[in-house]
Amino acid sequence: MTAPSLTPFAHTLRIYWEDTDAGGVVFYANYLKLFERARTEWLRSMGFGQEELRMQTGAIFIVSQTSVRYLRPARLDDLLRVTVELRHAGQASMTIAQVAWRGDERVAEGEIRIGCVDAQSFRPRRIPDPLLQAMATHLPT
Amino acid sequence: MTAPSLTPFAHTLRIYWEDTDAGGVVFYANYLKLFERARTEWLRSMGFGQEELRMQTGAIFIVSQTSVRYLRPARLDDLLRVTVELRHAGQASMTIAQVAWRGDERVAEGEIRIGCVDAQSFRPRRIPDPLLQAMATHLPT
Amino acid sequence: MTAPSLTPFAHTLRIYWEDTDAGGVVFYANYLKLFERARTEWLRSMGFGQEELRMQTGAIFIVSQTSVRYLRPARLDDLLRVTVELRHAGQASMTIAQVAWRGDERVAEGEIRIGCVDAQSFRPRRIPDPLLQAMATHLPT
Amino acid sequence: MTAPSLTPFAHTLRIYWEDTDAGGVVFYANYLKLFERARTEWLRSMGFGQEELRMQTGAIFIVSQTSVRYLRPARLDDLLRVTVELRHAGQASMTIAQVAWRGDERVAEGEIRIGCVDAQSFRPRRIPDPLLQAMATHLPT
Repeated sequence: MTAPSLTPFAHTLRIYWEDTDAGGVVFYANYLKLFERARTEWLRSMGFGQEELRMQTGAIFIVSQTSVRYLRPARLDDLLRVTVELRHAGQASMTIAQVAWRGDERVAEGEIRIGCVDAQSFRPRRIPDPLLQAMATHLPT
Repeated sequence: MTAPSLTPFAHTLRIYWEDTDAGGVVFYANYLKLFERARTEWLRSMGFGQEELRMQTGAIFIVSQTSVRYLRPARLDDLLRVTVELRHAGQASMTIAQVAWRGDERVAEGEIRIGCVDAQSFRPRRIPDPLLQAMATHLPT
Repeated sequence: MTAPSLTPFAHTLRIYWEDTDAGGVVFYANYLKLFERARTEWLRSMGFGQEELRMQTGAIFIVSQTSVRYLRPARLDDLLRVTVELRHAGQASMTIAQVAWRGDERVAEGEIRIGCVDAQSFRPRRIPDPLLQAMATHLPT
Repeated sequence: MTAPSLTPFAHTLRIYWEDTDAGGVVFYANYLKLFERARTEWLRSMGFGQEELRMQTGAIFIVSQTSVRYLRPARLDDLLRVTVELRHAGQASMTIAQVAWRGDERVAEGEIRIGCVDAQSFRPRRIPDPLLQAMATHLPT
């Protein structure tokens, strides 16, 4: 019996001047921004806005670790599809795999580790329950 | 008889972490980026991609002057509607008025002056004809 | 009798990859960042750190208006000297003229209007007195 | 006999508004920029400017892989010391370890893999000899 193939969440975005550098291509540091936009839209697709979460629960997410491989240059006007796949979710942290695609070419790929902390103290805290439950349905089995 | 009221082109975008600063609101310098994304989509709506224009005609657009007023703070997760109105178009330059709206509140507004130059020499040159013609239909009468 | 010529405060900075765009030159929106670094160092030269000011007085500065003219392209590795000249200081706002120089060439110049607000409410408030007094010595006569 | 302890190259920089986000701290993606400023100054300390290298040899450096751990929040006005340690240098690539310090606290640390490519074709090419030789003196033994 084959496992159900989950199609990962994807967010499509355009490359603008602000994203490029004098090499004529997307500045590598900016892929972390592109990845984050996709994660934000992924949370929103589950019904969670980060500003709202902060005001209601005092929780914010901070990125604790990133690793990215830059595979092909992307250019002004390119349309990229950035995927979000939850790899691991603990009580207070999660790991997310992301890929930026241009058509069927991988442009960049990375793994982002995120912690949930209290917005005031920056101390680790439990991910709010409704979000934990929503994420559970996105975990690979 | 009243002139027909032209609805300006508008591009809708989301505010992400990357757009904010430690004041908790959108970093003012970033409105120039938001305005530019909208101008890029406005050009695209007329059928023009800037990378394509550069490769086919050698022309690129450079911003020569900007003036912006920051009216209200925008925040993480806000959805802004950025309008683009061509105010003046010469042979080699144009002036564009832009507003960032949140609902019916003006968040920021500005005027951007843009020149057309040769991508190699950075010398002023005539805006490619098809684009000049397309823009003519967007000028106020 | 000629007025004493005040040498304006200047901050020198280097252009890095992050500052450039695919045109091969400094991305125009980034001049607002370069101007701000210079203003921050100007405040520091008078003995004021903005984080400290916020914690001690609850005051933060917000930019309410910017106008910039981009005169010449700057490039990777260029060393720019950014000047800061206080043009006007009121009880709760100030206007500052700034120029980015490369050698004796003007690369960009602008005028920045800044308001003092309460960090929580974002309502206008009086600039803290010690800073007002320090700035008074920088005003043109 | 103990090996001579090499003091790594360090570049000191200030945190400005542009570096922060609405969490009140440095936006994590920006550490890649801070690391790069330090690498640029490290190259310069050996006598190499990247714009000059490109014009003289046609070589540019592209970042092919980054991994960063964010250990402590840094804030507006913080002064960070960013170190650069060459870990490996091949014919066409190098790996560099970097740490951002605030006093004797590690704020962020990472490893950056860089390739040398032709500025036009983006194909891998040999690092220019004078630079290879200069870097050899920075390798751990």
